[in-house]
Formats: sequence, structure tokens, C-alpha cells
Amino acid sequence: MMIFFTDNDIDRLIEDDVPAGDMTTALLDIAGKRGSISLFARNEMIVCCTEEAVHLYKKVGLEVDFSVASGTKLQPGDKLLEAKGEASAIHLIWRTGTAMIEFASGIADRTRQLVESARKENPSVAVAGTRKHPPFVKKMALKALMAGGGVPHRTGLSDTILIFREHLLFTGGYEKLPEVISGIKEKMKERKIVVEAHTMEEALNAAKSGAHAVQLDKMPPEIFTECAGKCRAINQDICMIAAGSVNNTNVALYAKAGADVLVTSWMYFAPPADIKVEIIHLNHT
Amino acid sequence: MMIFFTDNDIDRLIEDDVPAGDMTTALLDIAGKRGSISLFARNEMIVCCTEEAVHLYKKVGLEVDFSVASGTKLQPGDKLLEAKGEASAIHLIWRTGTAMIEFASGIADRTRQLVESARKENPSVAVAGTRKHPPFVKKMALKALMAGGGVPHRTGLSDTILIFREHLLFTGGYEKLPEVISGIKEKMKERKIVVEAHTMEEALNAAKSGAHAVQLDKMPPEIFTECAGKCRAINQDICMIAAGSVNNTNVALYAKAGADVLVTSWMYFAPPADIKVEIIHLNHT
Amino acid sequence: MMIFFTDNDIDRLIEDDVPAGDMTTALLDIAGKRGSISLFARNEMIVCCTEEAVHLYKKVGLEVDFSVASGTKLQPGDKLLEAKGEASAIHLIWRTGTAMIEFASGIADRTRQLVESARKENPSVAVAGTRKHPPFVKKMALKALMAGGGVPHRTGLSDTILIFREHLLFTGGYEKLPEVISGIKEKMKERKIVVEAHTMEEALNAAKSGAHAVQLDKMPPEIFTECAGKCRAINQDICMIAAGSVNNTNVALYAKAGADVLVTSWMYFAPPADIKVEIIHLNHT
Amino acid sequence: MMIFFTDNDIDRLIEDDVPAGDMTTALLDIAGKRGSISLFARNEMIVCCTEEAVHLYKKVGLEVDFSVASGTKLQPGDKLLEAKGEASAIHLIWRTGTAMIEFASGIADRTRQLVESARKENPSVAVAGTRKHPPFVKKMALKALMAGGGVPHRTGLSDTILIFREHLLFTGGYEKLPEVISGIKEKMKERKIVVEAHTMEEALNAAKSGAHAVQLDKMPPEIFTECAGKCRAINQDICMIAAGSVNNTNVALYAKAGADVLVTSWMYFAPPADIKVEIIHLNHT
Amino acid sequence: MMIFFTDNDIDRLIEDDVPAGDMTTALLDIAGKRGSISLFARNEMIVCCTEEAVHLYKKVGLEVDFSVASGTKLQPGDKLLEAKGEASAIHLIWRTGTAMIEFASGIADRTRQLVESARKENPSVAVAGTRKHPPFVKKMALKALMAGGGVPHRTGLSDTILIFREHLLFTGGYEKLPEVISGIKEKMKERKIVVEAHTMEEALNAAKSGAHAVQLDKMPPEIFTECAGKCRAINQDICMIAAGSVNNTNVALYAKAGADVLVTSWMYFAPPADIKVEIIHLNHT
Amino acid sequence: MMIFFTDNDIDRLIEDDVPAGDMTTALLDIAGKRGSISLFARNEMIVCCTEEAVHLYKKVGLEVDFSVASGTKLQPGDKLLEAKGEASAIHLIWRTGTAMIEFASGIADRTRQLVESARKENPSVAVAGTRKHPPFVKKMALKALMAGGGVPHRTGLSDTILIFREHLLFTGGYEKLPEVISGIKEKMKERKIVVEAHTMEEALNAAKSGAHAVQLDKMPPEIFTECAGKCRAINQDICMIAAGSVNNTNVALYAKAGADVLVTSWMYFAPPADIKVEIIHLNHT
Repeated sequence: MMIFFTDNDIDRLIEDDVPAGDMTTALLDIAGKRGSISLFARNEMIVCCTEEAVHLYKKVGLEVDFSVASGTKLQPGDKLLEAKGEASAIHLIWRTGTAMIEFASGIADRTRQLVESARKENPSVAVAGTRKHPPFVKKMALKALMAGGGVPHRTGLSDTILIFREHLLFTGGYEKLPEVISGIKEKMKERKIVVEAHTMEEALNAAKSGAHAVQLDKMPPEIFTECAGKCRAINQDICMIAAGSVNNTNVALYAKAGADVLVTSWMYFAPPADIKVEIIHLNHT
Repeated sequence: MMIFFTDNDIDRLIEDDVPAGDMTTALLDIAGKRGSISLFARNEMIVCCTEEAVHLYKKVGLEVDFSVASGTKLQPGDKLLEAKGEASAIHLIWRTGTAMIEFASGIADRTRQLVESARKENPSVAVAGTRKHPPFVKKMALKALMAGGGVPHRTGLSDTILIFREHLLFTGGYEKLPEVISGIKEKMKERKIVVEAHTMEEALNAAKSGAHAVQLDKMPPEIFTECAGKCRAINQDICMIAAGSVNNTNVALYAKAGADVLVTSWMYFAPPADIKVEIIHLNHT
Repeated sequence: MMIFFTDNDIDRLIEDDVPAGDMTTALLDIAGKRGSISLFARNEMIVCCTEEAVHLYKKVGLEVDFSVASGTKLQPGDKLLEAKGEASAIHLIWRTGTAMIEFASGIADRTRQLVESARKENPSVAVAGTRKHPPFVKKMALKALMAGGGVPHRTGLSDTILIFREHLLFTGGYEKLPEVISGIKEKMKERKIVVEAHTMEEALNAAKSGAHAVQLDKMPPEIFTECAGKCRAINQDICMIAAGSVNNTNVALYAKAGADVLVTSWMYFAPPADIKVEIIHLNHT
Repeated sequence: MMIFFTDNDIDRLIEDDVPAGDMTTALLDIAGKRGSISLFARNEMIVCCTEEAVHLYKKVGLEVDFSVASGTKLQPGDKLLEAKGEASAIHLIWRTGTAMIEFASGIADRTRQLVESARKENPSVAVAGTRKHPPFVKKMALKALMAGGGVPHRTGLSDTILIFREHLLFTGGYEKLPEVISGIKEKMKERKIVVEAHTMEEALNAAKSGAHAVQLDKMPPEIFTECAGKCRAINQDICMIAAGSVNNTNVALYAKAGADVLVTSWMYFAPPADIKVEIIHLNHT
Repeated sequence: MMIFFTDNDIDRLIEDDVPAGDMTTALLDIAGKRGSISLFARNEMIVCCTEEAVHLYKKVGLEVDFSVASGTKLQPGDKLLEAKGEASAIHLIWRTGTAMIEFASGIADRTRQLVESARKENPSVAVAGTRKHPPFVKKMALKALMAGGGVPHRTGLSDTILIFREHLLFTGGYEKLPEVISGIKEKMKERKIVVEAHTMEEALNAAKSGAHAVQLDKMPPEIFTECAGKCRAINQDICMIAAGSVNNTNVALYAKAGADVLVTSWMYFAPPADIKVEIIHLNHT
Repeated sequence: MMIFFTDNDIDRLIEDDVPAGDMTTALLDIAGKRGSISLFARNEMIVCCTEEAVHLYKKVGLEVDFSVASGTKLQPGDKLLEAKGEASAIHLIWRTGTAMIEFASGIADRTRQLVESARKENPSVAVAGTRKHPPFVKKMALKALMAGGGVPHRTGLSDTILIFREHLLFTGGYEKLPEVISGIKEKMKERKIVVEAHTMEEALNAAKSGAHAVQLDKMPPEIFTECAGKCRAINQDICMIAAGSVNNTNVALYAKAGADVLVTSWMYFAPPADIKVEIIHLNHT
């Protein structure tokens, strides 16, 4: 229980899919029939959002007999969820529940791959997900990110201080960065100040100006190494962040290049995990 | 104006990203500064959700000077949106608006690719998107799907009649399909009845039972051709649907194999389109 | 469980009635008193929305001891719901729960009357409810419609393809109907195409143009018969729909006139069913 | 502007009808076409909820050229609303806007009939609507009630003090009514206390106990007269309320019988008013 | 159960505090750890909103072992709530639940102080809270007000008839008050009419015009006494209300001055009550 | 535009106050009357939430002629807002708008007092508001806090890393703090780590363990000075935070004692600012 999904979050998923009733099931004569539904991993995967699927299942009156926790690594064939109840209720949420787990597990698994690749090169590097996930899915994306071993870069504009070049347009440009940073530090002392830089010059300027972290955008790994070294010469505690097109092809390179944090949106657009569903007609209980 | 986004839809995007204020901007001294924001395509793309971005921009008080319509095909460098207003308002929605367009345009563009590939083989084939998109994004996914030339397979459980094998578990199995279909036809005459089939035998059974359409799941293209031929021999107007793992690698094959409709979720997990943003500090007006 | 009511749906009913507390009960000294509430049919009726009343009762902490399913035919005096708990909770939802069941049962029962009248003349005719119910009650109206043996004509604009004369104004008029219909068929193959017609000429035009169904608006029954015959001569599978002022006085006439579907809003404005409520003061348990 | 409808109230109406796009319009090629929509009364009617229709029309980008105020009495053929804009936007809200006005105007008009009948017998009698309207439509029902000359009896449990027999079950029965009423009066001095009575004995008991108003449930008019007389002999300022099955057949009788207030739900289940809609294809502007 | 809090009310509290996950807890390795949480009064207090805290606790899966009812008077050290469950769930709602009880109990306790002070002078005086509480907290403020022995003056604009001087600006001024009041009385007979007055002249005018109650704004206690006497000479049943800057320093004076009702917002801005929280690490169960 | 209020935020304020219509205004005959409303500061004050009042006014159709920005310091008699329109619309939002500004301005002004007191002793100290404001008002409380010169300590659990003693219960106690902190630092490098301490021993332990900031709870100022000195001897960049019962009586003492940040909830329970409202009846325009 780290991220809380409201009743409305779950209800909305059902309403989106069934705004005006399940027409197919309604036209079949299955009132009073009972069944079970079981979900299985088809491939190795980090599963995510089983708790939300349980919430969903219970919403429509199903009794949940088994579920694994988000973050669990499953092998092909492993069962992850099982429930029973009214046949019409099973049909109502079958695909919605499965699609939700497949989506979140796809992100979790891709995050895990990034983390594993990166940590082979640097065991203490962090993989951080941006806020540029598909619209409306923030909580689910964050849960999946963390289930896969990642952390949020920033969950939005309310948590971290991140100064873009586009901020500096309105405050006098990079040459005024020292004043800008000390102005912020006077007001806000409990948060780090991160500055985005596109060139080595900008990065060194940020380091000299007192930034706690420098986020290098789309800098090639070999230049990243040089730049990180020079920044650390200015401030040995500075946090060096690689961002911009970080993905499975280069995550290890950036880790090796000396990045402390690897920032990417790449995991959010993973193909969904593949889950097998088995529905059974139960005899009356 | 085909799909309507509520004020709450747009407000939620902002709240998700900025639940408690834009801390960075708030700590800079830019009250009263004004700027402009312009968005440009980096690659050829079908753009989507510019109307929703306009709605978003206006929400925070920006004045929109230019926008192209969803569905427009852009060339690299083409401008798609331009607005001006308070610098703090621009920073508030910059990434949210861009990420939304990038997400939707990514889907639209991938749909267009599928449609083009398929129609080379069969000019009257339809590409249909499932309801298995990321959670919470139905309206945006549908808008993008249609902007790219696709249509919804079903938008959820309330619109079409689609009988899965898992329905038949509760109604006496495939052997009772004729009674099931005639029962539905007696009640519901304004909608087609689609039956999912996994084997040729199931497909022929569905055709003989009076289904208006048969959805073949994961059937190889060459068998699809044979199966479609046999079904059409039973009912020349029957609609033959290919579903299950349809994507860019096989969409042309299925089109050539005689499918009337190609059903897939593949477009929904496209990488986001790439949009360049330019923010400028305007002199006071 | 065919139509899903969200927690918010039920909560809203309470909030609408009790936005700022139950003043009467609050000013009486009944904290800790317990009672039971029982509902009985005063007349023969098809009951509907007992499940939602159960949801409502549980929301305020009542324990439900008995309830019948929506769609059950009750005789005068039959009990339909019974619960017990805090006296203040009973007073909080007494009328809201009863009014909801009375509203839905009124619709269900009137639908049943239409269905029975129509099917005496034509056992396979369908009675379909429009989307022109009172505002904000779609799910409840649909549930009641189906509990009474009806089906939705269309639940809204997202499910069926229905071409009105007012669409054709923008596509070149009735003479362009063949192109319009074949254009739609090329894109959307999984749904039927219904065309509204006000005259026999329009109807025949629709049938010749390939419409799957023709909806005749306010056509007198005797002309309906002739028109249906001519349309079926063009396409024996065509669905002939009677719409516009269909109600209890003419539903049998239209059924006899050969309509496949009888479309009406008349059931939605039924007087509420009459339910007797009995509240009892229980001794402390 | 007496009752405020939120953006969400209006948006919900559209979403209910168009959860996933207007499929028919989307499949026609009418992008860029413009039209106008005009609404006319078919019969004499008190119109209601034109302001909400204007809100709705503007939501989808239409430009409203003309509208009459709620409460206006229209003659057959009178125009009540006119707007213009995108053809697809017109189709999106055509029926939703019309159905809303028809529903509210039906209630307003039936209320006016009750008021006129009652006031012929007693010019200062009030017609009051209960809270037992269809679920979810409170604001619209109240607006229509007042447009027709009625007032709310109570808008819910938070506004008035109304003691039912079922309250007294938990406070010692009718014999304890004097203590109950003086207890409430000590706490709550700014509101009247209304007591429901089913018999003359109960009514007199209520009057003697200090009730400001007595609500007689289903008492025949001739007994009502006698009962009102005796209550007024106890307290000349007491308000005598007739409730329970008050409708067009007996409203004048109760007014003549000396009721101060006529409480009913009958107006809420009026058939919708009949409105003619005219849509025109405009040349490009 | 007098005021109903929706699931959304409670969920919103959590979302406000934890829009994107509990970062601290997520980064600690405490999955599977279990604990208990207990709340104790630090001072004498009227506790309020324990029921809502129970609702909140259950939302995140905690098991509630003990709770006292809202309105209970606690002594220093008294326990008011105890629950157990997942450590991460305890951390998720610890402060939110406590802050809510502290806020509501602060209001309840301050109300109790006002009531006690006032009733020493006049045992039947009522203390009424206005609608000018902090934004968004109406239900909680009302619950606390009543838990402390107060009543709502008005919960908003929909419940009572209160005529301000600013209404009369649009109806012809104070000289037209008799017509205004008789006009309202003809329409609305089930509610009292309260008139605000700022001077003795206005007050007497209101009394003579038939107001059921006169609300004197910021009138010094000694003048209040004189004014009340003169108004009661006109109508012995008239309710005299003191409003405007009523607080702990003058509430007894106004009670002594003959006010029937003391209207104030002062209780709503009380400092929060002080609650001690004890969290314990439980051994595995 | 730093904090965004949704349409729903503003609509909810109106609905809370007017769930079922403004009864008083509805019963007066003022349709078509027009007026203006102007707001003035009665005392010196930092005004806040005028932008939200403008949003509110426009919601009901008023035309806003004048408004000052949040954060402006007003002198007694200064006008802060002026609008005109329908008399009924003015009455609908008069008190809601005023109460909102009074609430927010009360907080802003009290924050300013704290900031001024503290900065006299230490010009670079920060005053930070906790998340323990009244329920449901987070955005408004934060806006007011910042308008008064304060900053958020944390806006909730999603933004900062703050380790309480109650976290350590589940991770092995204070002796394991070094491992806990290095564990977090490995995962999350873009945020500071704050540790709460109740004693000097705990504080020194936190400083030695690598905390970026130490939050001393209810430590007397003189001990605070000593403790801060010792912590800074360990890490000269450490941020020393004073929390627990910080208010106007001791804020200068803590500033003098060497605190970098003064954390308090005290400003949130300020009495509302006092605003004078003037409503005028306008001649028809």
C-alpha cells in the first residue's frame, strides 16, 4: 500500500468499458450461473497491479481466492489471480482487469530490464521514470515503475525543483543562474535544485552556480563522462543525471559513463505483458 | 467534434501533473513576464489531440494563435500549435500538452501505417482497434485511432454483440450456438452478432448458426483464407475478422488472406510522436 | 450484474437528498436506537433496482436480511427488501431507496405491458427503448427497460449507426444515400446501418441503398405494412422498425403491421410503482 | 440564475449519450460543414432549461443566436432556441438538448396546470413538489417546478423539519409529541416544525403539541376541511398541508377544502413537452 | 449517522495528501511489517469525526479495534481510536486521519464552550453556526458544530429564507418590506422568514411586516435588549437573533440580552485539538 | 498562475452553498434586475484568492471590471474586486466568494507576520507551512501560504523524504539509521533526506548518518542553538529545521536560535480577514 487508488479510479475503468451495460451477456440466459476466473503468466514477468485487479473484482461481487503481490517475479505458467462468482460479473470485468495488469506489468518488466542492464555497469545507479507517461495513468505508471525497481524522476511539477533553459528565458539567461539558484535556496531549503543543461558549458555553469544536480539532455555517453568529471571537480557531491532518449540500447553506456541517475520515459510505452485467462463453469455451490 | 472531452478530462491532466502548484516556477520571480509557445513536428506524422491541447491552453489563460486539426498529416518542421500568455501559465501546461499530443499522434501514425499496408493488398479492408488500450485513455485512444484511418472494433461491452467461447461455457457450448444466436436475434435486431472462433470447425459452426461475423483468433493467414472461403460459401455476406497478434509484420498478409476487418491493439502501444517545443520571452504588450 | 452502478452513483443519490445532514433526525434524541425497514409491493409489479437499494442500504451501515432480484414479478403484499440497523441510518435512506425502486419498477412494469401487448400479435417482435429518457438516469432506465423485457434501441451515439434525414442534409440528400451507405460499410463492417425514413419513398430508397434496417417515423400502421412489404421485397433480411409515438394504444397495431422492432420512449415516463414501507423499532440486540 | 448547474452536470449529459464518440457522424464525411439548429414549441407550454441547453450548446462550440428564458409561456410554433456551428457539433447535442428541455418543460407545464386549478378555488394556496422525483434530476426538477409556479415542499432532508410517524417510533410515540416538539424548538428556532398525521386524532395532537404545520396524508377532502378547522381553532396560524396522491383530479378539491399547501410528486412524471427541431445546412461563412 | 460522507469525500483526503505515492515509506524496506496505531486525547475535548477516520482507516485495509463516537467528551489520556495492519498503510493515513479529527474536535470543543457560556445566562438559547466556515469543509464543520451542541444557522442558500438589506435594494427598499414578506408567505408557507436588520428602526419594520425572526447585525447587547423587547411587543413569538462578531467574549452578554439565537462563525476557526498518536511495531500474526 | 483550480473546485463551492437553489432570491421578484458588487479591505491585509473569486463570478455570468492580484498588500478601504450583472447571480455567490477570500487572506496575512518576525532575526530563514491545514483546502492553503511569503514544508507524502521515528520502528530503530539513509540515497538521488529528531542524541545520529536536514521537534530555542551547532560541525551544509508548536510567540526566537527553516501549521487557523461588500442596484444598461 504505497500508492492509493480511489474507488472512483477503479469504477471509472468499469464505466469506460461498460457505460451502458454488457449487451452480450445481458442477451444470454446465464442469470444464476457461476464460474471461476484464473490468470496465468505466459512469460517470465514482474507482475503489477494485482491489488487493483482484486479491488476491481470485489467491486462486482467476485470472491478472490488467490493473488500475488505487485512486484513478484513470475515464471511462465504461474498463476497470479483467481476468483469466483456470478458468470455475468466475470464477463463484466474479465478484460478490464487483465488489460490493466498486462499494461502495468509490461512497464514493470521493461523497467526491470533497464535496471538490470544499468546496474551491471554501476551497481548504485538509479533508473528514474519521467512524468511523460500516457495521459491519465500516473498512479499506475508510478506503481509499475517502482515495482520494476525504478523510481520517479519527478511525479509532476509539485515535487522537485527542476530549472529548464526555458525558465531562464524569463530570469535573465544562464549568466544569471548563480543569482537564480541562491534566490531559490533562500526560500526553499528542503529540496534539491536540479538544472537542465544541453552543453558542457551550461553544465559547468550550473555546477558552479550551486545546483545540487545537473541533468544533461541528450549528451553522448563519452562526453557525459568528461562533463561529469568536470562537474564533480567543482562539487564532489553533485548528482549527474543522463536524460533524453535513454533506452535499452544505451542505458548501460550511460551507467558506465558515470551517470548517477538515468532518466527516461521509455518503459512507459512497453508492449503489454501476456497473460492467459481461464474461465470455468462451476457447479452450483 | 466527434469525441467530446469534458472539462474534467482536461482539468484532471493538469491536476495529475500539478497537484499542489508548480514549485519551480513559483520560486522564480517571473510574475508578469509573458511568452509564447510553439509546437513543431520533428518527423512526418498524423497529428492528433490538438483540439484538446487548445482546450488545455485556454484553461490556464493562454491565447491560442494557431492550431491544425487532428488528422492532419504534417511534414518535419511544420508548426502545429502556437499560443501566448503568462510565462507561468506556459510552464504549467507545456509538458502536459505536448505529451498528450505526442501520445495520440503516435497512435494515429501507427494506425495509418497499418491501414496503408493493409489497403495495398485489399483496398476495402478495415483496421479496427480493440478496447485493450492503456487504462483510462479510451476517448483519446479512439480519437487517435480514427484520426489514423482506423475504426473501433468495439468501444466496450455496451456497443456490440460479441460471443466468446467463454460465454458459451455457460450456455451449453458450441453445439448450442444455433439456439443461442436465434435467441439473441429475437431480442436484438439492430445489431450484428459476432462470434469468436479458434478453429475452422468453430468458425463453420458459427457461420451455419447465423452469425453475422466470425472473428478468427490467431489463425495463420493461409488457414484464414481457407476458413473465410468456407464461411462465405455458407453466407456470402458474412464478415470475416482476423484478430490476435495482428501487427505491422502480418497485417498485409491477413488483408491478402481475405479478411474484412483486421482487429488489433498494436497501435495503442506506439512510441510517442516527437514534437519540438519553442518557448520565447515576449516583450510586454 | 449486467449494468454496473459506481459508488459515486449511489453516493450522489444520498448527497442530493441530504447535502448537509438529516436535520429532523439530528434534532431528535435517537442515537443508539435500532430498527428494521421492510418494503412490500402494493400492486402486481416487475421490481427493479433492488440491488442498487441494497448497495445504498449498506453504504449507511444497514444489514440487509432479504432482497429479491430485479426482474422478479411480485404480487400485492410480497416483500422485496428487508434490512436492520441504526434508526438514524434508516431515516437517512428510507425515501431515497424507495423512490429509486418505485421509479425503476414503474418503467419495468410499463415495458412488460408493451412487450406483452406486442407479442400477442407477433411473438418475435422486440420492444426497444430510445435514449430519450429523463436526463441523468441512463443506467437506471436501461436496467428497468431490460428487466421488463425490452432492449435498448441505442444507448447513445456511440453504439449504433443511425442515419437521420438531418445527417443527409450535409452529405448531398437522399439521392446520395447509396454512396453514403457504401462509404460507411467500407469503414465499419461490424455494425448494422439503420436509416430513418419518413415516407415510403425514403424507405424504399434506404432499402435499395443497402441499409440493414429502416426506421419508419410516425408512419400509420396500415401504411407501415405496405412499406415493410416493399422493403422486404428488396431485401428479405431487412429489419423494419416502427418509431415515433409508439405507446400502449398502438403497440399491438404496429406489431401486427409487421414491425420487427417497436421503438419508443413511452415507458420511461411511467408513474412510479407503489411500495409500502414498514419501519419497526427493534429492541436492543 | 437561481439554480446553478455545474460544468460537470452538463458534461455528464453529453458523456452519458456519447461515451465514446458519435459513430454515425464520424463515419460520414462532413468535416467543415456548418449548419444551424432551431427549436420550436409544438404546443402551448411553459418552457424550461433553455439556459442549460445554451450551456450545452456552447460546450461543443456552437454559437447561440437566440433563446427564451425558462418560465416563458410559448404558443405553438414559437421559437425557443437557435444556434449555429459545425454540423458534427450539432449532431452531438441535438437530442440531448432537446430531451432535456422537453423533460423540464413537461414538468413545468404540469405544475402550471395544478397551480391554475388550485388557485381558482383558493388564490393563495401553494403547490409544493416533493423530493420524490426521478433519481439524479433534483436540480432540473426543482427548476421546472418553480418555472411552473410551484415551490419545493422540501428539497431533501437538510432543509426542513418534518416529523413522520416513523420518527416517533423511536421517541415514545405520539403521546410524547409535546416533549419532542419543545425539545426541537429549544435547539432550532429558525425553522418551522411540520408533523405528518394520518388521522384527525394525530393532527389535533400535533396542533396541540405546538407544530407549526400539519401534513395530512391521504385524508379525503371533506375530512380535511373538518380537520383543518379544528387545528386552526387550536392555533390560528397553523399551516395545513394536504399530501398523498394529490394530482390533477383532486387538487381543486383540496384547495377548496382549505389546504394551505398541496404537496405532490405528480408533476415530476409528466410526459415530456413536444418540441420541433429544424436543422439547416448553412453555406460557408 | 446524521451527515453522510461519500467514498469520494474520504478518498479525496488521501489523494490530496498522497497524489503520487508515499515516497518515504516506499523507499524503506517495510513490506510485510505490521503495526498498530492508537490515538489519545491530550486535553479534555469533545471528539469529532472518529467515524470518518474509521472509514479512512478501512479504506487502506486497516482493522479497527476501537473507536469512540463523535460527540463524546474525553479526558486527557483517553483513547479514541485504535487500529492495526500493514505498516505502510498506517503511514499512509496517520496524519490525514489525525488532522481531520483534530480539526473537527477543535470546532466541536469551541462550540461547546460557547454553548456553556451562553446557557449559563439563558438555558434555552441556541448557538448557531453560519455558512462562513473554511471552503470545502461544510459537512465536517456542520458535524462538529452539532457534536458541540450547536445547530446550523443555515447550511447554505437552499434551506432558509433570509432577507438581507442587499435583497431589498432590488425590491424597493425597507418601505416595501410588508409587501415583500406577504408575497413570500403566499408562495412558501413551510419555512420561517428571517429578516436581517442593522438598526432598531429596521428591526421594528421587519417585526411589523410579519417576519418570523429578526437577525440583528452587530448590535451592542444593551441595545439588543431594548430592540428585542420592542419587537416582542409587536409579535410575542418572534425569534430574535444576534449576529455579527459573536464570540467567546460576548456570547454570554447576548444571551443575557435576550437573544433566542446566537449566530457566529467563530467556532470554525478554532485551533485544532491536540491528539497524541502511538504507533507500535507488532510481531507477525 | 502557479496553482491551478479546476472548474470542479469552483463549482463545488457553489454547490456546497446552494445545492438546490437560492430560495430567498427565487421567492423575490427580481428577474431582470441588475447590480454591481464591490469588495474592499477593512484592514491592512495581504489579499489572496481574488483569481478564484473572478473564476467564481464568471461561472454565474458576472462581468468582472476590476481585481487585484493575490499577494497584493492592501490598505484599509482599498478595493479588491468589482463586478456587475444579474442581481440573482450576485446573491448566488456573494458570500461564497467573500468567505473564500477572507479565509485565504487570513492565512496569507498571518504568514506574512511570521515571516517578518523571523526575518528580523535572520534575513535568510524560511517559514514553511505543514500539510496539517483544514481538510480539503490544500490548494487554497498553499496559495495563501506562498502569497504571504511562506513555502510548503511538504505538500503531502509524495514530494519529500521525511523519516519519522515511527518509520524507524519498522527498520531497526535509530541505530540502523546509517544503513537506512544510505539505502534511500542509492535509490533516490534527486531529493534531500530529512530526519525528524526529538533529542540531541537523535539529531547528532541523523547528522552522522548522512541526513541532508534534521527536523527538531519541540526543542526549546536554547537547546536548538546548541544542537544546530553540533550538527553543523558534522556537516556544514546540513539544514536545521525547527518544528512543533512554532507560532508568533516564538518564531523570532527560533530564527535567532539558528534555524534554517521554521515549520508550522499555525497560519492555517488564522481568523478570516475582514472584507466589506457593497452591492448596488444598477439602472438598466
